[in-house]
Amino acid sequence: MIKEKSFYPTKKNLNKVPTLGDHNGLSKKDLKSDFAEISEKLGDLQELIFAESKHKVLIILQGLDTSGKDGTVKHVFAATNPQGLRVASFKRPTDLEARHDYLWRVHSQTPEKGEFVIFNRSHYEDVIIPTVHQTLPRKHIAQRIEDINAFEKMLVSEGMTLFKFFLHISSHEQALRLKARIDNPKKHWKFELSDLEERKHWKSYQHAYTDIIQKTHHKDRPWNIIPADDKDLRNYIISSILVERLEKLKPKLPQFNKETFARINKEIKKLL
Amino acid sequence: MIKEKSFYPTKKNLNKVPTLGDHNGLSKKDLKSDFAEISEKLGDLQELIFAESKHKVLIILQGLDTSGKDGTVKHVFAATNPQGLRVASFKRPTDLEARHDYLWRVHSQTPEKGEFVIFNRSHYEDVIIPTVHQTLPRKHIAQRIEDINAFEKMLVSEGMTLFKFFLHISSHEQALRLKARIDNPKKHWKFELSDLEERKHWKSYQHAYTDIIQKTHHKDRPWNIIPADDKDLRNYIISSILVERLEKLKPKLPQFNKETFARINKEIKKLL
Repeated sequence: MIKEKSFYPTKKNLNKVPTLGDHNGLSKKDLKSDFAEISEKLGDLQELIFAESKHKVLIILQGLDTSGKDGTVKHVFAATNPQGLRVASFKRPTDLEARHDYLWRVHSQTPEKGEFVIFNRSHYEDVIIPTVHQTLPRKHIAQRIEDINAFEKMLVSEGMTLFKFFLHISSHEQALRLKARIDNPKKHWKFELSDLEERKHWKSYQHAYTDIIQKTHHKDRPWNIIPADDKDLRNYIISSILVERLEKLKPKLPQFNKETFARINKEIKKLL
Repeated sequence: MIKEKSFYPTKKNLNKVPTLGDHNGLSKKDLKSDFAEISEKLGDLQELIFAESKHKVLIILQGLDTSGKDGTVKHVFAATNPQGLRVASFKRPTDLEARHDYLWRVHSQTPEKGEFVIFNRSHYEDVIIPTVHQTLPRKHIAQRIEDINAFEKMLVSEGMTLFKFFLHISSHEQALRLKARIDNPKKHWKFELSDLEERKHWKSYQHAYTDIIQKTHHKDRPWNIIPADDKDLRNYIISSILVERLEKLKPKLPQFNKETFARINKEIKKLL
């Protein structure tokens, strides 16, 4: 498995960070079979954490259009149990949501004990979009970054296990994926006309993400910049990082104490 | 695939309805491989319905303790995409929930367009429990049955595709499953002390379910009584019923009209 620390952000502009990993010396075939094994482990850990009902796990997925957020949800979490795992997708705020502060809708979707929640986009959009489109004064954006740090710090100090993944793709890879979505009628539904418009702001997005990732990266709520041009590698790295850190929580199945166990056993024997 | 109509309820007391099916002439091995195929079909249908964002699918699972509600969630929905599928488990109401009417918490969890929601227990508990334990006057229970019919009728007329499954097990099978939960330390967390207490009311539960299933069964919101002593057969039947009815919705992927398609195509060509 790949070591998590290799994917901590650097001070470099994201434009200089590779979007294609070196496959960790694995062949494409090894990668797939290793992934299958890690994926099963992740499924087991999720069920264990659900049974123990002690830890709360929040997984934030961010990335530009076509970076693979939906694919990550589908493939990385394929072996999990829908009971205890929930996906919250944050699109353009509804009228109701827009009448609240920007953390209101995300806060209400955070996991309870035993639960995994995946945020497909998140409160980070509320910094990235206004930065790229200059719709908020710099001071207000700086305040939001401060808010987000305070919010995530509170979540973690109240027991949240927080993962933050930035799916990092190249501009060329995005062009290929947009083309694939239009060439394949089965993928038309995923094509958003606005994606072409947003692509024109590519450099601003890279700058904005470089900045916010630096400013919101902390040891206990780290960002991981995932080279995401290769989908198999992306899935492999993300699931490795999840498994490595979740194993450290040492989740355990709840057990009965001896007295209760003896009492139940006696009752059960009467039934059969 | 098994025909849905075979699992419509009869006027018989549930005590007389078989809890073990005849495997539809399939061997245990055929059953598993057929199930794998149907399970993939269900996964494809769910993704299609998510993409189309037109239909709302609600799946209610009811049954006595150990009847296999959790196992159904895990196995029948193994091939679905967590994006677009949600499980809502209704346990003893919280203080907040208890301060509302009994339909308040279930209504808020119903699916939106494109979504699948599984109810692990539901508003039916709010009739079954008071009937078995005689904690509400008969008149009030009759009123709740009327309420539920009105509520479900509204859901369906507003576009809900509603499935209601009763997982039907024998008293002997429940005893075996309770024993298995106590014999296997990995299953202790699933053992509820109250299950032994509730088991004493076995006959009352069968009567209460017989009654409410009759009174809330309608053509467009039918009950299916699933023989659930054999887990493989249970999964096979449930997924067959789901696939058969969902295919009839004829979900289709959204497509672009010719003009939009031509315009996008032109834009895309400039990118590469």
